[in-house]
Amino acid sequence: MEESILVLTTGGTIDKQYFDALSAYQITDTVIARMLDIARVTQPFSVEEITRKDSLDLDEIDRAKLLKRIETAREKRIVVTHGTDTMTDTARILSVVRSKTIVLVGALTPARFAESDAAFNLGMAFATAQIATRGVYITMNGHVFPANKVVKNRAQGAFVPIF
Amino acid sequence: MEESILVLTTGGTIDKQYFDALSAYQITDTVIARMLDIARVTQPFSVEEITRKDSLDLDEIDRAKLLKRIETAREKRIVVTHGTDTMTDTARILSVVRSKTIVLVGALTPARFAESDAAFNLGMAFATAQIATRGVYITMNGHVFPANKVVKNRAQGAFVPIF
Amino acid sequence: MEESILVLTTGGTIDKQYFDALSAYQITDTVIARMLDIARVTQPFSVEEITRKDSLDLDEIDRAKLLKRIETAREKRIVVTHGTDTMTDTARILSVVRSKTIVLVGALTPARFAESDAAFNLGMAFATAQIATRGVYITMNGHVFPANKVVKNRAQGAFVPIF
Amino acid sequence: MEESILVLTTGGTIDKQYFDALSAYQITDTVIARMLDIARVTQPFSVEEITRKDSLDLDEIDRAKLLKRIETAREKRIVVTHGTDTMTDTARILSVVRSKTIVLVGALTPARFAESDAAFNLGMAFATAQIATRGVYITMNGHVFPANKVVKNRAQGAFVPIF
Repeated sequence: MEESILVLTTGGTIDKQYFDALSAYQITDTVIARMLDIARVTQPFSVEEITRKDSLDLDEIDRAKLLKRIETAREKRIVVTHGTDTMTDTARILSVVRSKTIVLVGALTPARFAESDAAFNLGMAFATAQIATRGVYITMNGHVFPANKVVKNRAQGAFVPIF
Repeated sequence: MEESILVLTTGGTIDKQYFDALSAYQITDTVIARMLDIARVTQPFSVEEITRKDSLDLDEIDRAKLLKRIETAREKRIVVTHGTDTMTDTARILSVVRSKTIVLVGALTPARFAESDAAFNLGMAFATAQIATRGVYITMNGHVFPANKVVKNRAQGAFVPIF
Repeated sequence: MEESILVLTTGGTIDKQYFDALSAYQITDTVIARMLDIARVTQPFSVEEITRKDSLDLDEIDRAKLLKRIETAREKRIVVTHGTDTMTDTARILSVVRSKTIVLVGALTPARFAESDAAFNLGMAFATAQIATRGVYITMNGHVFPANKVVKNRAQGAFVPIF
Repeated sequence: MEESILVLTTGGTIDKQYFDALSAYQITDTVIARMLDIARVTQPFSVEEITRKDSLDLDEIDRAKLLKRIETAREKRIVVTHGTDTMTDTARILSVVRSKTIVLVGALTPARFAESDAAFNLGMAFATAQIATRGVYITMNGHVFPANKVVKNRAQGAFVPIF
């Protein structure tokens, strides 16, 4: 029997929508379920919202809530959608979980754009959640990074490996 | 040092374009390099065209050419874009290669559509090529399938596991 | 009080969808209402399907049905979505209607593609239906053509004026 | 002989791009020429940038520059892309031009989004520039508005007629 994938959403660029009334972007109802529908995913999965924040605004309470939800989940395969600026910080906190495969993923361009890295990144996360050994990973810029071997280079707009 | 990913294109729905003059689609210049650019992939890769065919039109010569290119490649991580109807047939032929990770991938809707499974599938293939053990895989419908454990159910429009 | 716009759909490339089970395009449920929603149209309108055909397959009965629906409509502003290959033939038949503004419009690339002329063309049609004098028009390739002063140049993939 | 259409860009939501390094959008190189290419426009046109600003930031100097460019243009058909918040203010200033057809147009969602009103609106503007009598118009929300008979209702996120 297949194991279901649990997708936990926290916000971030991937879920940004444009609101004319504010002339600004805001994080809104997640697009993740719709993206998985467009990708014709038949793998069992469920999507749950933990928070709806820019990752610079995530605090200890948010991260504790995320960690607890992962620890108590029946699923062994976890995908976390997350803003990119503090993705590695959250990964460090989740690294205490030893018995699951946890993949953090986001986007540098909102998923609602015609040209976005979001769908590709989410596909990497889904594959990694299925086949990587237990541990914490980040799937961005075409890489599957072990979470403790990557930093975001903000000037460069990319995640780069550290050795 | 990182290992580069070799992407070999053979055609299929993923690369279909619509031509008004024929009121029909045709396989055209591959969109794969552009998709990897939109996905902001910094992982080293190269893209090569093997054929440009609907997978029902692939013959023994095409498959021999594909096999030979994979066997002689310096890369250990191979992604093959392929039409879905005979993807499992090609996978069987490629299974003689023992020392590489080969991932076949395609799309049920052309990549040029606003709503397509192509980018998600290609992301799964890129992740699988990096982290799966040596062997042949198919990444469709949200699954990483070992290539000998999957069939396409055409009526259902989906790849399903066999046991 | 504003006059409502009546949109009559007949099929054509604008409404083509890709079906994997057939490895072919087919005309399907119209996307016109969804396009008008994305365009945030607040102008009153209604959408009705007359036929669902490639324009090369339209016959005299289809065109008679279309003509009759236009003649009996309360609306004075009519938009007809139509395949491009026989759009000028249908326009000729509709030119007997003297008291309405009728705009034929289609697309050279299906509306479901990420890059399509469909939305732009439909926008031209909506504007033309509102402000052009009574008569029959074709809005394609960035032009508002009086319907008797245009031909489709199929090799060129464009509508061109005749003088 | 056909008259060319002059497209003057001033910025606004239609040209907004998302920049990860700022977690914010910014107005960038205009997408208008690319949109007209996707729309397969064969009508002669040229695109010139006047400013690259949110319309709330446009000042008297910007508007004077725009007015002067329109007055000195050889073209009689002018399309101005513009942010929506002060579009009606700019229209009022341009209403001194008596011998041209001027159409202001923008978008409530950036053109780079998969689902945007931009292409439809631009199509309306192109049609209106060709067939409307001399004067100033706004083409938004599926309407061709005479510029002195419309206001933006920001709460509603739509342009509405005034009587």
